[in-house]
Amino acid sequence: MNKPILVLHGPNLNLLGTREPEIYGAETLEQVNRTIMEHAARQGARVDCHQSNHEGVLIDRLQAAADTAAGVILNPGGLTHTSVALRDAVAALAIPVIEVHISNIYAREPFRRRSRISGACRGVICGLGTHGYLLALDHLLHLTSPR
Amino acid sequence: MNKPILVLHGPNLNLLGTREPEIYGAETLEQVNRTIMEHAARQGARVDCHQSNHEGVLIDRLQAAADTAAGVILNPGGLTHTSVALRDAVAALAIPVIEVHISNIYAREPFRRRSRISGACRGVICGLGTHGYLLALDHLLHLTSPR
Amino acid sequence: MNKPILVLHGPNLNLLGTREPEIYGAETLEQVNRTIMEHAARQGARVDCHQSNHEGVLIDRLQAAADTAAGVILNPGGLTHTSVALRDAVAALAIPVIEVHISNIYAREPFRRRSRISGACRGVICGLGTHGYLLALDHLLHLTSPR
Amino acid sequence: MNKPILVLHGPNLNLLGTREPEIYGAETLEQVNRTIMEHAARQGARVDCHQSNHEGVLIDRLQAAADTAAGVILNPGGLTHTSVALRDAVAALAIPVIEVHISNIYAREPFRRRSRISGACRGVICGLGTHGYLLALDHLLHLTSPR
Amino acid sequence: MNKPILVLHGPNLNLLGTREPEIYGAETLEQVNRTIMEHAARQGARVDCHQSNHEGVLIDRLQAAADTAAGVILNPGGLTHTSVALRDAVAALAIPVIEVHISNIYAREPFRRRSRISGACRGVICGLGTHGYLLALDHLLHLTSPR
Amino acid sequence: MNKPILVLHGPNLNLLGTREPEIYGAETLEQVNRTIMEHAARQGARVDCHQSNHEGVLIDRLQAAADTAAGVILNPGGLTHTSVALRDAVAALAIPVIEVHISNIYAREPFRRRSRISGACRGVICGLGTHGYLLALDHLLHLTSPR
Amino acid sequence: MNKPILVLHGPNLNLLGTREPEIYGAETLEQVNRTIMEHAARQGARVDCHQSNHEGVLIDRLQAAADTAAGVILNPGGLTHTSVALRDAVAALAIPVIEVHISNIYAREPFRRRSRISGACRGVICGLGTHGYLLALDHLLHLTSPR
Amino acid sequence: MNKPILVLHGPNLNLLGTREPEIYGAETLEQVNRTIMEHAARQGARVDCHQSNHEGVLIDRLQAAADTAAGVILNPGGLTHTSVALRDAVAALAIPVIEVHISNIYAREPFRRRSRISGACRGVICGLGTHGYLLALDHLLHLTSPR
Amino acid sequence: MNKPILVLHGPNLNLLGTREPEIYGAETLEQVNRTIMEHAARQGARVDCHQSNHEGVLIDRLQAAADTAAGVILNPGGLTHTSVALRDAVAALAIPVIEVHISNIYAREPFRRRSRISGACRGVICGLGTHGYLLALDHLLHLTSPR
Amino acid sequence: MNKPILVLHGPNLNLLGTREPEIYGAETLEQVNRTIMEHAARQGARVDCHQSNHEGVLIDRLQAAADTAAGVILNPGGLTHTSVALRDAVAALAIPVIEVHISNIYAREPFRRRSRISGACRGVICGLGTHGYLLALDHLLHLTSPR
Amino acid sequence: MNKPILVLHGPNLNLLGTREPEIYGAETLEQVNRTIMEHAARQGARVDCHQSNHEGVLIDRLQAAADTAAGVILNPGGLTHTSVALRDAVAALAIPVIEVHISNIYAREPFRRRSRISGACRGVICGLGTHGYLLALDHLLHLTSPR
Amino acid sequence: MNKPILVLHGPNLNLLGTREPEIYGAETLEQVNRTIMEHAARQGARVDCHQSNHEGVLIDRLQAAADTAAGVILNPGGLTHTSVALRDAVAALAIPVIEVHISNIYAREPFRRRSRISGACRGVICGLGTHGYLLALDHLLHLTSPR
Repeated sequence: MNKPILVLHGPNLNLLGTREPEIYGAETLEQVNRTIMEHAARQGARVDCHQSNHEGVLIDRLQAAADTAAGVILNPGGLTHTSVALRDAVAALAIPVIEVHISNIYAREPFRRRSRISGACRGVICGLGTHGYLLALDHLLHLTSPR
Repeated sequence: MNKPILVLHGPNLNLLGTREPEIYGAETLEQVNRTIMEHAARQGARVDCHQSNHEGVLIDRLQAAADTAAGVILNPGGLTHTSVALRDAVAALAIPVIEVHISNIYAREPFRRRSRISGACRGVICGLGTHGYLLALDHLLHLTSPR
Repeated sequence: MNKPILVLHGPNLNLLGTREPEIYGAETLEQVNRTIMEHAARQGARVDCHQSNHEGVLIDRLQAAADTAAGVILNPGGLTHTSVALRDAVAALAIPVIEVHISNIYAREPFRRRSRISGACRGVICGLGTHGYLLALDHLLHLTSPR
Repeated sequence: MNKPILVLHGPNLNLLGTREPEIYGAETLEQVNRTIMEHAARQGARVDCHQSNHEGVLIDRLQAAADTAAGVILNPGGLTHTSVALRDAVAALAIPVIEVHISNIYAREPFRRRSRISGACRGVICGLGTHGYLLALDHLLHLTSPR
Repeated sequence: MNKPILVLHGPNLNLLGTREPEIYGAETLEQVNRTIMEHAARQGARVDCHQSNHEGVLIDRLQAAADTAAGVILNPGGLTHTSVALRDAVAALAIPVIEVHISNIYAREPFRRRSRISGACRGVICGLGTHGYLLALDHLLHLTSPR
Repeated sequence: MNKPILVLHGPNLNLLGTREPEIYGAETLEQVNRTIMEHAARQGARVDCHQSNHEGVLIDRLQAAADTAAGVILNPGGLTHTSVALRDAVAALAIPVIEVHISNIYAREPFRRRSRISGACRGVICGLGTHGYLLALDHLLHLTSPR
Repeated sequence: MNKPILVLHGPNLNLLGTREPEIYGAETLEQVNRTIMEHAARQGARVDCHQSNHEGVLIDRLQAAADTAAGVILNPGGLTHTSVALRDAVAALAIPVIEVHISNIYAREPFRRRSRISGACRGVICGLGTHGYLLALDHLLHLTSPR
Repeated sequence: MNKPILVLHGPNLNLLGTREPEIYGAETLEQVNRTIMEHAARQGARVDCHQSNHEGVLIDRLQAAADTAAGVILNPGGLTHTSVALRDAVAALAIPVIEVHISNIYAREPFRRRSRISGACRGVICGLGTHGYLLALDHLLHLTSPR
Repeated sequence: MNKPILVLHGPNLNLLGTREPEIYGAETLEQVNRTIMEHAARQGARVDCHQSNHEGVLIDRLQAAADTAAGVILNPGGLTHTSVALRDAVAALAIPVIEVHISNIYAREPFRRRSRISGACRGVICGLGTHGYLLALDHLLHLTSPR
Repeated sequence: MNKPILVLHGPNLNLLGTREPEIYGAETLEQVNRTIMEHAARQGARVDCHQSNHEGVLIDRLQAAADTAAGVILNPGGLTHTSVALRDAVAALAIPVIEVHISNIYAREPFRRRSRISGACRGVICGLGTHGYLLALDHLLHLTSPR
Repeated sequence: MNKPILVLHGPNLNLLGTREPEIYGAETLEQVNRTIMEHAARQGARVDCHQSNHEGVLIDRLQAAADTAAGVILNPGGLTHTSVALRDAVAALAIPVIEVHISNIYAREPFRRRSRISGACRGVICGLGTHGYLLALDHLLHLTSPR
Repeated sequence: MNKPILVLHGPNLNLLGTREPEIYGAETLEQVNRTIMEHAARQGARVDCHQSNHEGVLIDRLQAAADTAAGVILNPGGLTHTSVALRDAVAALAIPVIEVHISNIYAREPFRRRSRISGACRGVICGLGTHGYLLALDHLLHLTSPR
């Protein structure tokens, strides 16, 4: 796998660690990204990490990943529950996309229990904290490793 | 009609022709736009074609069209089903706006069968492939031609 | 295209022009049909125009069109929102069917915003006044013209 | 009032008196119509009574009433709960239309508690047995009598 | 019929004639009651007319009517759509109760299209203006007249 | 059992065998009717087979069956999901009515999974192909045979 | 426990025993109250029994109970299903409130199967006839007895 | 057909004949099974009949039928309306499964009108009493007989 | 503005300050009213403050305000979510009515997130504690001050 | 009453006292059963107490109770909200069944506020802790005691 | 209070005064902002006013306000009804946020009556025209003033 | 971590690999379990693997795990969507439980998109094939490893 994995964080995830740590934990996004990169490096893989509060930027990034990435780890933040445009961008990708949520969205407010994105993804990892990003990465590497 | 028609494509329509051709056909957006321009030119009209994955950019464009365009052909992409802000931008326009969808959204997943935009438009053309853009253009020209 | 296009008007469309002109315009159905015929003639095509207030008659006509028409332009009137039987008749047709509504049904009462027919049609043109019939005709001719 | 009142009975009302008398009473439709006619005659008015099991026939009759009747008493039978086409025919009439139900539809199965017709009528009389027709007639005569 | 008919008006009906005459007409409640009384007197009957903005008072009145009235004409006003307690008071009555609405509630806001009371009444008269009270009275007298 | 069994086919069933054979099989309606008749004849019974695309005609036929048939086998086609008038006609019959569907409607689109007719029938046979008609016939004969 | 238990009966419960005995039994409210009082007296407790058809009076009583009663047994009658104001009055009480229904509301009409009050009470006893009041009393005494 | 047909009865069907005969008839399950067996024997076929109140046992039986039965007649009892696990077991079977209900579930309480099982079965027979089992058997034999 | 402003508090607001202070604050209703009066006095205005647990009393007060008040500040308490009668009384008023809630009802239980009253008011102030009353007063004075 | 009362505890009630004591209290199931037995013994009655996590076992027990028990106290645990099969087993019993819940299910998560069982029971006691079992027992003894 | 108040206007509010003045008034956004600033200045406070049609920009601004503003006045425009991402940005702020709407959204189309934002705000002011911004400002200053 | 991890497979998962491999893959359950065990062994951990088609057995196992396991990996099969009893068993466990689905349930039929179990679990892994079990195991080991 020569192309990197795209790790894409949606709205408000740049606040990680600085706010509501009881829900999202105490790590900052920078720390999370560094941990993901090191985890990838240990397995000879690379990741590109980006965050944006703009739906359009996230769609642009996803579209670009078609040619530049081997897979995508996507935490759509609050757009999870509302964005058909983001879903369409995922559906248009031939490379595997895994949706990750740090908290267990199915145990929160009713409006957070439905994802508009999941149906277009390969799979979902949810509620396992920031460790979920590493598991998603492991799965993408597993998909491309010889079996 | 001295002002041009604005043709505005929403999220993921820049992928036209390169992905999911069984749904959206094999023409690229560039080709579609060129066909629209030629169709307009044959009738002595001009079109301005734009695409964006950003809801905000689409709203900015729609607002600007109030003074610079004679009518709008809008394919809102995935925002069709979710964006009240886009609907409000349409509703604020005095010039006619026609919503166009390449595929028949009423024959697809349930969440695609409701448009938040249609109620604020003059009308809708849907499911007629990229030919729908030309028909929408014909209607806008028909509206301003002497009868 | 040697077979004619069937133009089929559903319940209450025979009242066109004589009632509620603020919604449906001032043209009578006879005038509308004449305009469609002339528009077809200019392109070397023929149309057969029929109206009925009877769901069964409309279904009979649609079934007959399988062998006698090259395409159908269908305005189902109030049956749009209720008739599965009409939808089934459309679905059984191999020739293209385009649903046309004179007014923008998505901008009217809630019960008019859902069509039971659209999902079985090739496409929908809605809200463009009686001009919508001509655009539907143009599309059917476009489908059969050499490209 | 020189034009007659149209009394229009929908599907299955021809069975009146012969079936389910515990719901609809023991009078036949013929007897009901005769009583209505005599009631009208006593007040110097005329009524035309018709029954059909065909939605299309009922719509045809309603349309014809625009020019030939002074008002309409409509019992839509089972079409009450489903027919938008019938509603549209009522809405297109300038003369007053009163919806009558022999039984109290609001005290029956849930699907009978919603009428698609009522919103387009002048008013509704329901649950008062066949006497409801006479009251509806009295109201139509009241509307046209000098006050 | 020696006992009088109870005519019971619910919340805000005391405002009749003084407000929103485009919906409820220009007659005051006092005039309406007088017309009902005269209409009853002409047929040798008596009516007792009351109005209250208090659900509890209306229930008290309905309960008292069990022994003192021959029938009830009830316009529950805004309680129509919400009061199970009022419905229960109606259901407990052995004498006939007719629900009357001056305006056509089925043609108004969605929350006005459902009556919690109708299912417990003998029947409903709705949308026929204040004339509806007279028709309801006629029906109650019809019920007790020898046939 | 001297009276025949009425076999009544609803809208679009006249298309059997000629369209969508992957859903409805390759037999024509004529063949189906012939098979039913032969099956009946072998058991000394008679059947009358009719098809109509008109709801009103179906209701007329059902009403007539009250006096002329020993039982009814009804495939309401697309009216299954919408027609209260047809349901009322079934409910008014004292003879047994069995609803038959060739395909398994509970395995198709959501709007086909609810029948407005079933609740008024004796029973339902669904998804067993055209063999379902024969089973329905067997049941009607079983009902009238001495046990 | 020196303060009495408040027994509060809502709308129409004053009709107990005189109407619909097949649902509510043949005891009058007076008899029910006497039985409750005797049952309390046998255990050295006192009860105050009140009934009102007025939501406001019931709320006033509940508020007063905060200082004057040791617990409340509340049968809200038809207000059970509709009154948020009554619920709020219950929620504001620190003393225990038990909701009692004579009939099994979960086995009746759909609109009776939801109580707006239960969520603010300590518990519910339902369907056990007027014996339910005695059980509720036993529970309130149980709560305050030394264990 | 050398393998037997599995007849599988779900929860509470062991009570057949002893309780609620007005709904389910007076035959005991033992009698029903004997009738099925004799009916099969007359056609040279065998049946295995089982009943269980345990969802898990029913699933175990269905799974075992994959190798040991030629088809299944399944009456899921109360699990009809709730069990996705049972549906999955049906869906995993390659042999035909027919759902049978003795009573007409579509004419009973609303929660009984939806089957979670039907969509995974070949077809449904419902409301024809215990005769429905025999018809289901006839259909399974019909499927495997030379045509 | 010579007429006073009516400040009308609904059910349970008389408990302010004494119960559930974590939601409603520690001020008593008397203190709140005094603060409103002083705030009004400072601007040369007068207020009339009333509270009732009785829907009917609140409606009576609102009706009387038509002639005696310059505007209304209404906190409907638990009636907010249920009372159409109160809404109708507001709708009948020509003077401006502002709905005030001390707590943020949109952040509480689902049944508190819908107000039946808001649609008939000029506007809503919600969640700003008892300071909301003063802001509502400021707005009413702003409306009548010369600009 | 010579037959014992069956006390039947559903899934997870064997965990009583050892987990989530803030919801279910600190008593173990063994202690609860012992208290019930002693309470019965003091009144000369016997109880049989059983718990199972298996729906099928609970149904088997209920069926057996028809001949062996004088009444049933049923806490269906999590099956309360989902099991139609259990409801059917209750409905088939001629002896009285009382549903008991230790916690107030109407004050918990939305999916716990609806019981599929209650409609088939004689009554419900809910939210009164384990004391509810004793009250249910008292009611069953009350039913069979001479009055 | 040394930090300014952030006033944040969402999509299409830049059109204020130039379009649909019957809903939103005749003031331009520039005038509104100037009035707010002057109102703040009179009380010794500062405001920062921004408008954007981009959800992402609004979120960026809200995040930045955590360190740079003393409170926020937010009119989310059409995003009110759809944006969970914006809600999350509000929820992450420790400073008070007040939602303001110029028109009464509860009196408009059904889809405008639900705000996804309100539940995360301190409170809401709605329907009081542009004066609502000043009242929101007064409340924020009130919160920080010594009491 | 000395206690093993419990891997619990629900209904129909014993069919893995033998049926519907296009959804669930070609591995048998035995192979899956072996792979999990080897994966655990490589990290010095143990797993106990069980499968049952019986809800009750699964609950029994989960309860036993409280004392005997360090964590649970649960694939509830078809019970995912229906079983509150299973959810309660999960909620009663203090050790972490991870829900695993082989297929992406959010991309399948609507009734599979809601899990009744997820809200009581620590997290969910879904759609990653049988590799999801290994990732769940990695997470449980991660939770107990020193950090």
